[in-house]
Amino acid sequence: MRVGIIGAGQLARMLLESASALGLEVTILAEHPDDAAALTAHNVIIGTPKDPEALAALADVVDVITFDHELVDLDLLEELESAGTVRVAPSPAALICAVDKVAMRTHLAGHDLPMPDFLAIEPGSAFSFDDLGGRFGWPMVVKAARGGYDGRGVFVVDNVDDARTVINRLHGEGTTALIEEHVVIVSELAALVCRDSAGIIVSWPVVETAQIDGVCREVLVPGNVSDAQRQEGENIALAVADIVKNVGIMAVELFATERGLLINELAMRPHNSGHWTQDGSVTSQFENHLRAVAGLPMGAPSMTATHVACINVFGGPDALDPFHSLHDALGVSGAHIHLYGKEPRPGRKLGHVTVTGDDPDEIRHAGWAAAISLGTVMPDELKRETR
Amino acid sequence: MRVGIIGAGQLARMLLESASALGLEVTILAEHPDDAAALTAHNVIIGTPKDPEALAALADVVDVITFDHELVDLDLLEELESAGTVRVAPSPAALICAVDKVAMRTHLAGHDLPMPDFLAIEPGSAFSFDDLGGRFGWPMVVKAARGGYDGRGVFVVDNVDDARTVINRLHGEGTTALIEEHVVIVSELAALVCRDSAGIIVSWPVVETAQIDGVCREVLVPGNVSDAQRQEGENIALAVADIVKNVGIMAVELFATERGLLINELAMRPHNSGHWTQDGSVTSQFENHLRAVAGLPMGAPSMTATHVACINVFGGPDALDPFHSLHDALGVSGAHIHLYGKEPRPGRKLGHVTVTGDDPDEIRHAGWAAAISLGTVMPDELKRETR
Repeated sequence: MRVGIIGAGQLARMLLESASALGLEVTILAEHPDDAAALTAHNVIIGTPKDPEALAALADVVDVITFDHELVDLDLLEELESAGTVRVAPSPAALICAVDKVAMRTHLAGHDLPMPDFLAIEPGSAFSFDDLGGRFGWPMVVKAARGGYDGRGVFVVDNVDDARTVINRLHGEGTTALIEEHVVIVSELAALVCRDSAGIIVSWPVVETAQIDGVCREVLVPGNVSDAQRQEGENIALAVADIVKNVGIMAVELFATERGLLINELAMRPHNSGHWTQDGSVTSQFENHLRAVAGLPMGAPSMTATHVACINVFGGPDALDPFHSLHDALGVSGAHIHLYGKEPRPGRKLGHVTVTGDDPDEIRHAGWAAAISLGTVMPDELKRETR
Repeated sequence: MRVGIIGAGQLARMLLESASALGLEVTILAEHPDDAAALTAHNVIIGTPKDPEALAALADVVDVITFDHELVDLDLLEELESAGTVRVAPSPAALICAVDKVAMRTHLAGHDLPMPDFLAIEPGSAFSFDDLGGRFGWPMVVKAARGGYDGRGVFVVDNVDDARTVINRLHGEGTTALIEEHVVIVSELAALVCRDSAGIIVSWPVVETAQIDGVCREVLVPGNVSDAQRQEGENIALAVADIVKNVGIMAVELFATERGLLINELAMRPHNSGHWTQDGSVTSQFENHLRAVAGLPMGAPSMTATHVACINVFGGPDALDPFHSLHDALGVSGAHIHLYGKEPRPGRKLGHVTVTGDDPDEIRHAGWAAAISLGTVMPDELKRETR
């Protein structure tokens, strides 16, 4: 079975590690030869995911195409799928809910799923800022329908002037603006599921994530997630997967609020909130994504430890290569370290550390100790001894 | 850190999976472009390990060289090491004990380690078959000092005529014959350790292996290994590592006999008896081998389950590709499947299945069910319901 992956970041790199064991032959479509996965893959095509020729070259040598990221051209993917020579998993019809935030809200609306109130405003359409203010109040959230990630493309605006500036800028770029109710977030959770083409879904435990400026810094399993939240989050993710009919991994980012969980965003590829599954679950998200995409039965999502902490490694202000402090980091007992081979830059995501165990504080501290020794700066917001 | 691997079999392929996570840049010296690791590696040099030019090309692009197999030229490796531009781990001075069975017996003799009685007979040297018979009795074991693996190069001879035939053939090939006492084997065990350049050694639990015609078919952890055997086996392996001063993994194959454990052979690379560590240990043999070779601290060798069964997958008589039955095999609950991407041939080792759990019979049956569905024929000797 030959699998093509669009994009060559760390997700593709970690998919390659699992693909090797399954005997899958993988070809990567990489924008640059020094992308994380392009450094380890045997088969690399250099090109952008929006270039029809590069996509055709990939489709020529694989049986199924899947994704490292969602910055893709859905029309091109639909053409590929229609041509019938290659499968696309998840299919463009599902993937749109991860590519386009307006499509996601619209698609899920009417299914009795908990979401913030929202309104899509296309470029050139008529609307009144007073009506917006009346409906959503201030502050409100304005999002670019497409193209944002890691907090980019999301704006909290406090008044009409700021809203006008942001919406006009998005419209000037030809982008639909998604207006969302600003909700008071008690905590952020993520539910991870994997669905196969027959509609079977496996579901990992719901996790607590810490997002600083829209970027995931740590994932705690189960973290501060109540049994009720775990059940609610899992039910939401199962319902969403049933509706959008994705094949492969889907992460549902959730806001925990005073009125319960609300769906924030969807991702349809291995997700940062699921990296812990490599070292803390019977089957990792990477392996199950490949198994689902390749038409193979999925493995058990059960935990292999009672608690797991996964801490992201970012380039520090001096942009030192974390590899050079790997000796110290591996000296932290129990630390499983995953580096992405990316050129270090301040603030760039360069790896993650996973620690499993029985004591949630102990493993969280160990994870941070290793991440800090790799150059990560711990955000003040996360400096707490215990919950 | 740039690591070179001599040889491109499944061991190199699985080292690549671990190297990716550690951010190590690996180059493989492969004899053939379709070798297991050559199919997945980003950096491949095609050449044989006994070709000075191929070795020099590898040494040019890496910081340290390690091994997928022991069919190497120690003189060439010593020259490389002496030149000082690249490290060799394990060093040729240690590796000789895995390359040359006579060197191993001679090196370990006098250290009060339990071994069968032995005698090395070089080509052209004078000896009497009657003396041999008097010393070792019949049957006795004749081994090629170098070049054998998976049972090849090992002969049990019953009389002077057979001994003469085998020894003459070895001598005719320029190979020293190692004569060993034939011991009655109650069971076969293996002890696995990893030693770093500072002399620190980590040790996994001793395992029971089932060898049919010299080929490992299943590994049970702990299997039928008593606490005393476990301790004795571990002590032997630690002592051997202290003596030979290998860097990286060393497997010590052991015979359990009526007079206790006896050292059979050494391997200084990830070993089939340690594949279970990928799915049943906090740190796999592949990761720790790389960590030791790269000068990084090693991780914990503790088990993540009470019992582990690891069953080898071999090509069946019809030589079907096990990938085609991967769907069925992955349907076996709890089966972790590792395929090597090798072209199927009857009897060729094509992968392994690992299952972890609390019930040793249950996981053994599950492992065999998956291996059989991948085309493996279960040897009659292993058809037993319980111990």
